[in-house]
Amino acid sequence: MRGILLAKLNETEEFTEYMTRSRAAVEEALSGSIPLDWEMPASLRESMRYSLLAGGKRIRPILVLAAAEAVGGAELVPSAMPVACAIEMIHTYSLIHDDLPAMDNDDYRRGKLTNHKVHGEAMAILGGDALLTHAFHQVVQASRKHRVPTDQVLAIIEELSVLAGARGMVGGQAADMIGEQGITSLEQLQYIHLHKTGDLIVFSLRAGGRVAGASEEQLTALETFGRQIGLAFQIQDDVLDLIGDEQKLGKKTQSDVAQSKVTYPYFIGIEASQVEIERLTREAKEAIEGVNLASPQRLIELADYLMKRDH
Amino acid sequence: MRGILLAKLNETEEFTEYMTRSRAAVEEALSGSIPLDWEMPASLRESMRYSLLAGGKRIRPILVLAAAEAVGGAELVPSAMPVACAIEMIHTYSLIHDDLPAMDNDDYRRGKLTNHKVHGEAMAILGGDALLTHAFHQVVQASRKHRVPTDQVLAIIEELSVLAGARGMVGGQAADMIGEQGITSLEQLQYIHLHKTGDLIVFSLRAGGRVAGASEEQLTALETFGRQIGLAFQIQDDVLDLIGDEQKLGKKTQSDVAQSKVTYPYFIGIEASQVEIERLTREAKEAIEGVNLASPQRLIELADYLMKRDH
Repeated sequence: MRGILLAKLNETEEFTEYMTRSRAAVEEALSGSIPLDWEMPASLRESMRYSLLAGGKRIRPILVLAAAEAVGGAELVPSAMPVACAIEMIHTYSLIHDDLPAMDNDDYRRGKLTNHKVHGEAMAILGGDALLTHAFHQVVQASRKHRVPTDQVLAIIEELSVLAGARGMVGGQAADMIGEQGITSLEQLQYIHLHKTGDLIVFSLRAGGRVAGASEEQLTALETFGRQIGLAFQIQDDVLDLIGDEQKLGKKTQSDVAQSKVTYPYFIGIEASQVEIERLTREAKEAIEGVNLASPQRLIELADYLMKRDH
Repeated sequence: MRGILLAKLNETEEFTEYMTRSRAAVEEALSGSIPLDWEMPASLRESMRYSLLAGGKRIRPILVLAAAEAVGGAELVPSAMPVACAIEMIHTYSLIHDDLPAMDNDDYRRGKLTNHKVHGEAMAILGGDALLTHAFHQVVQASRKHRVPTDQVLAIIEELSVLAGARGMVGGQAADMIGEQGITSLEQLQYIHLHKTGDLIVFSLRAGGRVAGASEEQLTALETFGRQIGLAFQIQDDVLDLIGDEQKLGKKTQSDVAQSKVTYPYFIGIEASQVEIERLTREAKEAIEGVNLASPQRLIELADYLMKRDH
């Protein structure tokens, strides 16, 4: 009994270390991705770096790295770093634009003033545009610096342009904006979750897999994994907004209620939402366990970690 | 004498026809680039299509097509169309974001209400983001639909991500925003022109050349051509704002003066500005004539056309 407990503890500790190490590697790569000696207006660089280096869980880039490791082993992780940075740039730009007065009009994000509160609206718009554009530059570096085959890099760029665009994340954002005037069905809410959050997570998994030369079967399993944890992630966000700890979350809870936003718990209740999170996480893991992968362990751990997170 | 006049007239007519035909082809390709049956929120699609299909001179896409023709002959033009559409998407998104209240706060563009006046600020921001993202999807189609080699397509994507980004167009926009608080030198003004307008024109030339498999020497000549006509184009814009015909321009003149914007004529006067336009145009043509190209005629004609335009 003691042995089992200890093993479990070590496993947990080891995963915590893995996350700390991965986050540090991502932070370093992100900081290096906009060199200080590149010629551009200083205020634009500051706007870009302010939000890109504002911390955060770095879930998406770590999923890219973990997917590459799952398919090709740990030695493939460095080759996946440019794509990991790219997805964090896309995520960051979407937050900057989403926080603008014309959109959600938020003053704080992760306990810090939002980009436009510090750099002004114009520089927030331009900083976001520049990060979005720079994401594609990053993906190309997977070929330039790590010799990922050009046809894989091109496929990654194509998928990014779809999953981050009008048929993907931006479409989800737009549906969310429109939905603020009234979502009437769970299907509408699922559309928003699927695209606003889910598509970038699916991209992260597939792109990480592609860097490591994944087969179509492996890509499909990674996509299913991403789709299910992406939805679970968003439902968890809704649940945490209702019953989470403000200190840990770094933001006010009950904000969805205050803004009369409909959420998963709104439609099916908190308990059923939690059951749904567990079901989705189980399905995600099953998809991964159902194919032959070199080292899927980190992905499995990440799925459990996301399900149990409190912020 | 009569013969020479007649030949000149025919040449002019033929170029006018070329422009009409090229514009029509670009319009058709742009309209097809966001299919009506793609799943996305209708209001987002409308925002994107509203600005993308709002007319305009289509100079940048035509420069892409003309550069491909210059290097590889007329049969290379269809392969260049996806990149031509991409650059117009980038140009269009930059106008949408530039017109926003937080930026230039313009109500009209080309005689039509600006995007945010029709679709609201949120959908204008998202429509712009979606067009920027979709531009990269378009470039990939040069490989998918026209078998442009993947290494050329990847190089085009890399150059687009630089020339449209923080070190390129967005950097120029940012410098322009900051400059509204006071530009003190011609060098600052040149930086803005070089990046805000020049970089996309340089991209158009190089990318069109790449589609046709241009050599490094040819790419350098195309770049010089683009750099010089890009700067001439912008000075011409400044001059037209001072002495142009409001009817033809489709916008009020003297707007730079009204906004106390410094311009080329402000620094060196109208006459010297016109001499500068002619000098730049001559240098552009000399760069093209200095290398071996299959059919450079359209580029030469385009340089003259841009110099003589009245809108």
